[in-house]
Amino acid sequence: MYEVAFEDLLISRLGEPQFDTEQVLGRKVEGMLDNDRILFHRHLSDVSGYAQKQQKIPVVELAGPRSRLFFKPQDTRIGIVTCGGLCPGLNTIIRSIVYTADQYYGIKTVYGFRYGYSGLNPQVGQPPLPLDTNLVDNIHMQGGTILGSSRGPQDSAVMADYLASLGINILFVVGGDGTMRGAMELAKEMEKRRQPISIIGIPKTIDNDIAFIERTFGFETAVEEATRVIAAAHMEAKGAVNGIGLVKLMGRDSGFIAANATLASCIVNFCLIPEEPFHLEKFLADLERRIRRRQHAVVVVAEGAGQDLIPAGQEDFDKSGNKRLQDIGPFLKKEIIRHFTARQLEANVRYIDPSYTIRSVAPTGDDNVFCLMLGQGAVHAAMSGRTAMVIGYRNDHYIHLPMTLVTRFRKKVEIKGRTWKTVLDTTGQADYAA
Amino acid sequence: MYEVAFEDLLISRLGEPQFDTEQVLGRKVEGMLDNDRILFHRHLSDVSGYAQKQQKIPVVELAGPRSRLFFKPQDTRIGIVTCGGLCPGLNTIIRSIVYTADQYYGIKTVYGFRYGYSGLNPQVGQPPLPLDTNLVDNIHMQGGTILGSSRGPQDSAVMADYLASLGINILFVVGGDGTMRGAMELAKEMEKRRQPISIIGIPKTIDNDIAFIERTFGFETAVEEATRVIAAAHMEAKGAVNGIGLVKLMGRDSGFIAANATLASCIVNFCLIPEEPFHLEKFLADLERRIRRRQHAVVVVAEGAGQDLIPAGQEDFDKSGNKRLQDIGPFLKKEIIRHFTARQLEANVRYIDPSYTIRSVAPTGDDNVFCLMLGQGAVHAAMSGRTAMVIGYRNDHYIHLPMTLVTRFRKKVEIKGRTWKTVLDTTGQADYAA
Amino acid sequence: MYEVAFEDLLISRLGEPQFDTEQVLGRKVEGMLDNDRILFHRHLSDVSGYAQKQQKIPVVELAGPRSRLFFKPQDTRIGIVTCGGLCPGLNTIIRSIVYTADQYYGIKTVYGFRYGYSGLNPQVGQPPLPLDTNLVDNIHMQGGTILGSSRGPQDSAVMADYLASLGINILFVVGGDGTMRGAMELAKEMEKRRQPISIIGIPKTIDNDIAFIERTFGFETAVEEATRVIAAAHMEAKGAVNGIGLVKLMGRDSGFIAANATLASCIVNFCLIPEEPFHLEKFLADLERRIRRRQHAVVVVAEGAGQDLIPAGQEDFDKSGNKRLQDIGPFLKKEIIRHFTARQLEANVRYIDPSYTIRSVAPTGDDNVFCLMLGQGAVHAAMSGRTAMVIGYRNDHYIHLPMTLVTRFRKKVEIKGRTWKTVLDTTGQADYAA
Amino acid sequence: MYEVAFEDLLISRLGEPQFDTEQVLGRKVEGMLDNDRILFHRHLSDVSGYAQKQQKIPVVELAGPRSRLFFKPQDTRIGIVTCGGLCPGLNTIIRSIVYTADQYYGIKTVYGFRYGYSGLNPQVGQPPLPLDTNLVDNIHMQGGTILGSSRGPQDSAVMADYLASLGINILFVVGGDGTMRGAMELAKEMEKRRQPISIIGIPKTIDNDIAFIERTFGFETAVEEATRVIAAAHMEAKGAVNGIGLVKLMGRDSGFIAANATLASCIVNFCLIPEEPFHLEKFLADLERRIRRRQHAVVVVAEGAGQDLIPAGQEDFDKSGNKRLQDIGPFLKKEIIRHFTARQLEANVRYIDPSYTIRSVAPTGDDNVFCLMLGQGAVHAAMSGRTAMVIGYRNDHYIHLPMTLVTRFRKKVEIKGRTWKTVLDTTGQADYAA
Repeated sequence: MYEVAFEDLLISRLGEPQFDTEQVLGRKVEGMLDNDRILFHRHLSDVSGYAQKQQKIPVVELAGPRSRLFFKPQDTRIGIVTCGGLCPGLNTIIRSIVYTADQYYGIKTVYGFRYGYSGLNPQVGQPPLPLDTNLVDNIHMQGGTILGSSRGPQDSAVMADYLASLGINILFVVGGDGTMRGAMELAKEMEKRRQPISIIGIPKTIDNDIAFIERTFGFETAVEEATRVIAAAHMEAKGAVNGIGLVKLMGRDSGFIAANATLASCIVNFCLIPEEPFHLEKFLADLERRIRRRQHAVVVVAEGAGQDLIPAGQEDFDKSGNKRLQDIGPFLKKEIIRHFTARQLEANVRYIDPSYTIRSVAPTGDDNVFCLMLGQGAVHAAMSGRTAMVIGYRNDHYIHLPMTLVTRFRKKVEIKGRTWKTVLDTTGQADYAA
Repeated sequence: MYEVAFEDLLISRLGEPQFDTEQVLGRKVEGMLDNDRILFHRHLSDVSGYAQKQQKIPVVELAGPRSRLFFKPQDTRIGIVTCGGLCPGLNTIIRSIVYTADQYYGIKTVYGFRYGYSGLNPQVGQPPLPLDTNLVDNIHMQGGTILGSSRGPQDSAVMADYLASLGINILFVVGGDGTMRGAMELAKEMEKRRQPISIIGIPKTIDNDIAFIERTFGFETAVEEATRVIAAAHMEAKGAVNGIGLVKLMGRDSGFIAANATLASCIVNFCLIPEEPFHLEKFLADLERRIRRRQHAVVVVAEGAGQDLIPAGQEDFDKSGNKRLQDIGPFLKKEIIRHFTARQLEANVRYIDPSYTIRSVAPTGDDNVFCLMLGQGAVHAAMSGRTAMVIGYRNDHYIHLPMTLVTRFRKKVEIKGRTWKTVLDTTGQADYAA
Repeated sequence: MYEVAFEDLLISRLGEPQFDTEQVLGRKVEGMLDNDRILFHRHLSDVSGYAQKQQKIPVVELAGPRSRLFFKPQDTRIGIVTCGGLCPGLNTIIRSIVYTADQYYGIKTVYGFRYGYSGLNPQVGQPPLPLDTNLVDNIHMQGGTILGSSRGPQDSAVMADYLASLGINILFVVGGDGTMRGAMELAKEMEKRRQPISIIGIPKTIDNDIAFIERTFGFETAVEEATRVIAAAHMEAKGAVNGIGLVKLMGRDSGFIAANATLASCIVNFCLIPEEPFHLEKFLADLERRIRRRQHAVVVVAEGAGQDLIPAGQEDFDKSGNKRLQDIGPFLKKEIIRHFTARQLEANVRYIDPSYTIRSVAPTGDDNVFCLMLGQGAVHAAMSGRTAMVIGYRNDHYIHLPMTLVTRFRKKVEIKGRTWKTVLDTTGQADYAA
Repeated sequence: MYEVAFEDLLISRLGEPQFDTEQVLGRKVEGMLDNDRILFHRHLSDVSGYAQKQQKIPVVELAGPRSRLFFKPQDTRIGIVTCGGLCPGLNTIIRSIVYTADQYYGIKTVYGFRYGYSGLNPQVGQPPLPLDTNLVDNIHMQGGTILGSSRGPQDSAVMADYLASLGINILFVVGGDGTMRGAMELAKEMEKRRQPISIIGIPKTIDNDIAFIERTFGFETAVEEATRVIAAAHMEAKGAVNGIGLVKLMGRDSGFIAANATLASCIVNFCLIPEEPFHLEKFLADLERRIRRRQHAVVVVAEGAGQDLIPAGQEDFDKSGNKRLQDIGPFLKKEIIRHFTARQLEANVRYIDPSYTIRSVAPTGDDNVFCLMLGQGAVHAAMSGRTAMVIGYRNDHYIHLPMTLVTRFRKKVEIKGRTWKTVLDTTGQADYAA
């Protein structure tokens, strides 16, 4: 259990919301959620721990419309920016924000900043794209992002100036933890300037590893696509003498996609993830045993797995500041071939690196619903004057979480938890952590 | 909030589990969950309600392996039966049970009873199918159930005799609330006879309306398929002068599929569900307005919607005891045509009843993972001697729930809740409940 | 063999093409096809028959660009109209025409007439939609037609007047044989008026039954979709006691979709098509035998099959002049139930009428290529001054065929031919024609 | 046009077929094709060329059952072997052969040799797998080959001995031109030994480049899959500043997949194939222009393209004797980055090498029909005593072609032909051959 205090879950506000929602919108809008709260924790041991220590039990706000607004719709100008790598559902979120702004609040001015934060720096970026419901009507059916994306930060002051010059009151930022850190700096800059701009994040990580959030958009779709690739590897493995299908999947720091795709496909024999360092020689010996017994095998490896095994190259970082990983896929392929060659045992390794094909597809129906709800929640939160927060998902509810909380660390597959145990049981692979 | 007492969540047991799991299996099996509990409720108001009333706060057991076993694997004989209509994922559950029994516990005898409860009555049914890992290896990639299914109960005494004659210790029952009621009667019969057979349910309802359970298997897949059909209706609607795509979806008592498919596809203009009775003339007038303004419309109707509007035919029931519904689809088509004809306004209604095509497909990757976990949880629960319970899902965890609890009522779409409000916001349709 | 004379294949022209293509376009354009011809027949017996009778062997022109143009691009104004029921690929054809007109010839004026021929009658229809490459850029990825469609003719004189008033020189007509008859009348009207408008047809029939044409667009996609439905029926059949999956597929006059979907899925036990009348009682007896032996069966029936078996209702015609068929699906379901009930043999019939879901999907990649080529061929043919012809496909080539030829009759599944024999061999069903 | 002498189309026979088919099978089997022939050529110029030279016009036999059999079913033992790389449809062909042997001729003994020709050498290979209709019932729904495959030849004498020892009369060989050469040698060995074994080939090349054959199985499916990958590249390209999606597709010697996938997806800007050598600097300059104008681009490159541009590495050959190609994908990526870096122009290259994921999928419905017909034709041809031939497809018919003919050369995309011209028109790319 991660220590989270009651106070950690308090949401920042730009100020007191002064307008009555129903009066402003001229109609009854039900489902107000001003006072509803859900418990942040669900394990009895966690909850009772607070009670014993006589601490307040942490609770979170639910996403949704509020009875009072901070912004008047006719004075509201919205910006959206999508940052980092592609992830299924980006367009659905854009669409949901534009539609909610227009149809719920009557806000007509929504700018889509182009290519990540660079679009918020007029020196380097392209001018924003005015968005309306016509333009975004069908975009949820396609992958990618109509705004484009990019990695890396921009100067907060420059962005603040630019937003001010455009009269933006609300900025929606879709991106990973690096993006959220950029958003927090921007929020601080705003606060310093006493410029009341609401900054609401929608956490994006195809790897599903944002802290304290049960599920992030696009993850389910990615798992679905990954199972297609694993099925191909399986067919290749069975189609060759001692065939070994080797698939590299996304997962820099965490093995959620690898683990879930392994469970979803039921045909993986070895699943290697960053959370559980594996012994190369033990793995190769186990693989050999499997091949001798069954003549084919499927190996799934998360891109961040086994980094300690690869001789270090030059240290290198991408624009998001992520350390460039050594490429575990070709390394493993080479090692497998070396191992089998040394034993004069034929082995046909079919290596598949599906790379961009997984993250660029259109979302599944379920991810579409998820993105729709995230987008709506984001607009409602912003209109109420909340800021420096994200829309998250936990305990079957869409919730508000402070940006400071979700950037604390990256979530990991718990190697003592049910999911990973089930992976071990399903693959029959050795538990290197045991 | 539904009143659930702490005691409502206690799980029945056949007796004290006497065998040490690790000793019996001859290996360390981690992830034991003997004492872990999660809170049943998550709303602060719910939880604090119990505290104020000085009642125990309801908590639930987590699904997973236990440190002590009631059954000795070598003496254990397992039965599986699938009942009611098809639902994506049935085969994955069968596969998961067979694999967990074999690979985790070394249990080799698993019988698949054919065609629902009729397979438990040797007078009417067919002999059971012996299942092993070879037979079930690839079945998770296909829809349907390899065991077959049927509706309706059989006599508890007859089933108890038959199970006894086969030496079955554990029976897994996959089915809806009717099926679970049958299972409870069987469990009572067993208790009466002091025949220690564990009966574990895996709740099946493609409509996702089992009480107190957040998600049931196959639902996500059904929504995914339904969006395909809605896309077809949309194309048909746009392709004709004043085209109206009318789609009937599953949902006898609840509109979860209709509501979620509406959100997932983002192109529905009217979503009609049983929970919110609609005024026929108002709906027709709204539809007319939409057609005059936009020249096309998509209408999704759950099969249980609008039953009050249709002149009653003869009362009729299916073998599961479900009242046969009047067919809302053709009724609505006829009424729409009548309305537009009367106004001399051309309208081209394209009615689609996708019926069996939605429920018979193979599960999505995510549903596969879900079914895998349900199956594993079921075997672990049975081996520990638990009975008359189901494997459920709540608060992001797989849990144990008493059968008595989940058959209390059927879950409904809350028409004051976020999902339905979002449907209203997304479609722009009138809120008949307002 | 159908008698086709050399003269039957001559293509009408508006006049002598006077402009040199390369000179007009200002660049070299290779792949000119002025003199290339392919043989219409391929059976030795057919070809030698002409030789013996000392008749000219029929040959056809290939589709593609010509070295001389009849129309000057800068004076050319194009119209497109899509008629009849939806068919996968309509949008790809529209896109291909717009792109070829713009990028190959530099023609900027392309009107899309709305909702079939009604869009060519300003009294009843809606104004045309100006089309350009931006508008049509992504439409090939979606089903339906962005122009809309409708059934039924309009007065030739009215359409001719309207086309003249808009200055249209070229009209592309996408539709079935009824549509082509309308196009021929319009072409005659033009000739009478000495109004040089080229009218080029692109034959549309999801049933693949246009005379003398090997393949029509959308057919392959329809078969692909139909196999999905048959797979569902198969799962339903296997999932129930004596389950019978009954699927009605398109095919008013011909069973091409039913036959090909039967072959494509390999799991159909009975395939009923209009070309081979079946004996109801014999079919039911065979079905009973199959059920007794194997406990499940899949029956595919084309909508036009068995019309002679159904008690005639009132004669009725749709706007295209097609006689409304009796609904064979429910009739067959009722008869099957009657038969099994009389024998006190349980049977669970699952009837699926996928209706609009098959014809409204996006085309497969192969159908996309096909539509692209048809659209390009159509523009080239029109620019050379050809008229009253269609773009067809035969002997692996895209060709020109006179409209008079392709409307002579509707193609049928040859019940003595290889495809149908293979259906009989594959299903094992009786040959009612034997 | 390639000159084809009349003799080339004569099909070898093991001897006179002595048994009356209907008498042997005890039932009427219609659709006998003893005397039907179709013309090999279809271009008027080709056909008239023969006439002018007073040569006989080449004609081909149609695939299908014959009125007389060479083999008696009860004495017939069949072998099947699949060689070379995976290709969608292999299992459907296996299934079709087994079903036709069993259900049409009543032949129960069918051996599936494992892992290509190595399965025909008992010294190195694994024992054959006995096949029956139960075993192969559902295999057409999955990719790969249940027999496994491998590259490379085995000694003819060894294989002949082994076939003799097993009493095999008929061997079906599924593979590429190398495989067919092996089959011809085996046929010669058989002839030398006067061992009457029929050897029938089913040409496999996912690249669709078998000489004189219009279409090979799996090609359509591969194009379908390739369009999915291209769509991903498109999304990636549009999602990044100056994004360039670079996709490597199969096509060692020919660009059919690249060209058709380009047409099928309509979103490719540059398609590079082996048949049209491209100028690297010109390509880069054109790509730069495209990026400056439109900010994104999609490049498809066949694996055999641009080999002349890559500095030669060590010459290397795979077991099939194919020269290992230099890897054009990473080379092109590097060159693009070099080019843009030199111009200080940002460019984000997203390189996708889908590799095995394309060839290992299950076939489309249309490819399933195709494979079914090939398999049936092969069995009929063998039973009539034909040998050293393949089942091909041409002029819309399944035909018999001598193995000698189809191994003469590999088919190429005609760079003056309609398909390639259409690629140039569609992409707008330069014609390097001009």
